[in-house]
Amino acid sequence: MRERVHATYWMETGDDPARTAEVIAGEQSSGTFVALATETPELKQRSGAFVERLEVLETVSGPSLPGARPSDRYTRAILELSWPVENFGPSLPNLWTTIAGNLFELGQVSGLRLTGLSLPPSFTAPFTGPAFGVEGTRALSGVAQGPLIGTIIKPSIGLSAEETAQQVRELVAGDIDFIKDDELQADGARCPFEERVRAVMRVVNEAADRRGRKAMVAFNLTGDLDQMRRRHDLVLREGGTCVMLCLNAIGLVGVQEFRRHSQLPIHAHRAGWGALTRCPALGYDYAPWQQLWRLAGADHLHVNGLRNKFAEADESVIAAARAVLAPIGPDARMGAMPVFSSGQTGLQAAETYAALGCTDLIHTAGGGIFGHPGGVAAGVEAFRAAWTAAAQGVPLREAASGSGALRDALEFWR
Amino acid sequence: MRERVHATYWMETGDDPARTAEVIAGEQSSGTFVALATETPELKQRSGAFVERLEVLETVSGPSLPGARPSDRYTRAILELSWPVENFGPSLPNLWTTIAGNLFELGQVSGLRLTGLSLPPSFTAPFTGPAFGVEGTRALSGVAQGPLIGTIIKPSIGLSAEETAQQVRELVAGDIDFIKDDELQADGARCPFEERVRAVMRVVNEAADRRGRKAMVAFNLTGDLDQMRRRHDLVLREGGTCVMLCLNAIGLVGVQEFRRHSQLPIHAHRAGWGALTRCPALGYDYAPWQQLWRLAGADHLHVNGLRNKFAEADESVIAAARAVLAPIGPDARMGAMPVFSSGQTGLQAAETYAALGCTDLIHTAGGGIFGHPGGVAAGVEAFRAAWTAAAQGVPLREAASGSGALRDALEFWR
Repeated sequence: MRERVHATYWMETGDDPARTAEVIAGEQSSGTFVALATETPELKQRSGAFVERLEVLETVSGPSLPGARPSDRYTRAILELSWPVENFGPSLPNLWTTIAGNLFELGQVSGLRLTGLSLPPSFTAPFTGPAFGVEGTRALSGVAQGPLIGTIIKPSIGLSAEETAQQVRELVAGDIDFIKDDELQADGARCPFEERVRAVMRVVNEAADRRGRKAMVAFNLTGDLDQMRRRHDLVLREGGTCVMLCLNAIGLVGVQEFRRHSQLPIHAHRAGWGALTRCPALGYDYAPWQQLWRLAGADHLHVNGLRNKFAEADESVIAAARAVLAPIGPDARMGAMPVFSSGQTGLQAAETYAALGCTDLIHTAGGGIFGHPGGVAAGVEAFRAAWTAAAQGVPLREAASGSGALRDALEFWR
Repeated sequence: MRERVHATYWMETGDDPARTAEVIAGEQSSGTFVALATETPELKQRSGAFVERLEVLETVSGPSLPGARPSDRYTRAILELSWPVENFGPSLPNLWTTIAGNLFELGQVSGLRLTGLSLPPSFTAPFTGPAFGVEGTRALSGVAQGPLIGTIIKPSIGLSAEETAQQVRELVAGDIDFIKDDELQADGARCPFEERVRAVMRVVNEAADRRGRKAMVAFNLTGDLDQMRRRHDLVLREGGTCVMLCLNAIGLVGVQEFRRHSQLPIHAHRAGWGALTRCPALGYDYAPWQQLWRLAGADHLHVNGLRNKFAEADESVIAAARAVLAPIGPDARMGAMPVFSSGQTGLQAAETYAALGCTDLIHTAGGGIFGHPGGVAAGVEAFRAAWTAAAQGVPLREAASGSGALRDALEFWR
């Protein structure tokens, strides 16, 4: 327990950066706004957060965020703090409060963003992390190599269970690897969870008997804890191989608790993530954030996609995917699978592969599959062919000469 | 289930505001980036989100947030959307994903902030809300009128259980109503939860025997679910009357699940809130956000304080406190108690009272109590006297003529 947790921040302050760094370290450990006789040097040395690094980047004339103490210039810096593990112990929620609690609203800063997190073995040791990860997901889906080619049921919400099953029928007939519920589709009155699982799994199981390989369907079982456990048991009983959780809506403790019960891969959706990350001067980078959810048990983590329809830049998408694939610590691999989505087609395969150097991922497309003039099967075939070409370093146009489906796809992918 | 949930947003868009409103409504219900044959007019009418109101505010030349589609002007507007309850049912996490999920990162907006939430009876009916609220808290603490005068154990972290108990001894001797752990103090190796509870409750129970009134101590039991339940049981067994949860670190499902088990008031800490709210163009106002936690069971909710040491403006603090005191719906009062803290003294009593029109709150001070030259008892007495004066409309200087403790306090409160 003598090891330390390190967290890195981007910060902006109108005050002296070194003083601000000490205020943040104090606020998140033994200090407070006023000097206390009981905060002895020994206590501070033992329980205080240390400023490990402070690297000034630049100064600007105005503050990024409102509410900061007025100043005529604001300094931006990289700040690294560390805490003794014994302050919070190996507890995810208490770690969160320490590294990402009451610090964003400090008047001393006009911007603060958590950019990195390094956890020592004494913190990570008690966690089992993802139960399935890459290997388990490949085993259950029967996809030994290449990415899992996937899609999302659309419309997101409004279909009945039978209409959903009908869409799944078309998809599995088209040899898809992975299908997920939309994050909005959980257990609405129009498409109750139980009915949907039974209807969909009937289709998936029948197709698996024919194909010898079962499409993985991530059923969104987000709900309260009892509901999630019951829904998990139903999915398992019906032969399902994956469940989906909306992380931000459930929270760390709910996900951890569900993980203790779960016997299926956890497909982790990050809905709500935009509110945590889109202001560059506030909130979180994905790299530290996703570590907490992998420790809690997430097997698949959404990372958006290259040239996506959202506001996220490609560099951010790739950094997120690399973070998901990287070990959490020297003794804690806990690898999860990044999930690429949003405006994706086979056109992003080569770039995605080049950036990651592996195919341990799930790549989902909607229009990129359904829009194929040859139908869903041709759409899936073309997407897969694009990935085979990417992994072999063959240009798409060239690969298209050997695949009619890919050739046709290149006409409408854009 | 034919009722609708309404949510209000502040938005900024470089596109036509009406078109952007439809994109957001579509993305959060049945629509997607491409038109789908299966999204029939009937389905859209039944399951789609409706744009209920769009009020253009102003236009600006640049975007508030990065990543938005380029434009030469950006329009700001108030947007109100509604959804049929049947889309998600009475489920907090699924409501959250619907009103605050994948919308903040839409490329169509250069700013989006959830500002209001209105929940119909068919949504709120299954929830019991705070088990104690104002009345239960007053009954347990023996404070029939006026605010609960409180404080926070400091240093936040680093004291042993015995040192904590020693501080509590001084506070209860000074007739304090309420004491809380810091949000960083949960179950660290230096001050294990069990040891702390036993040591503190020994002191509190002894004092209660003498005083005939028990100080309420909010023990921070944040941890995984089993830990929280075990810790709750210990607090209850030792005669404790309150527990504290860090909402953002635990999450909605964990808090809901804990509430089902709990027999004590839930003191809800909002550590991490700054990351969700400080960028004016992104995230959440407190009013809609706190509703979810009251439905989950929070009895006390932190609202910062007037002229606080953080970046929050006074109007925001008061709006937050009023929201906590307001009923959630016509059939769902679910009142909770706002908790004022951060740089507070009796000097803020009159203004706080004037803004709220009641004393159903917890007011905590650190230096404002400990700094009193007459000691803790005089500090508590002065703070309470300031509130009595506020409630009676007596100016502080005048009230000080009848209270030596208040007179002395006015020398150092500033």
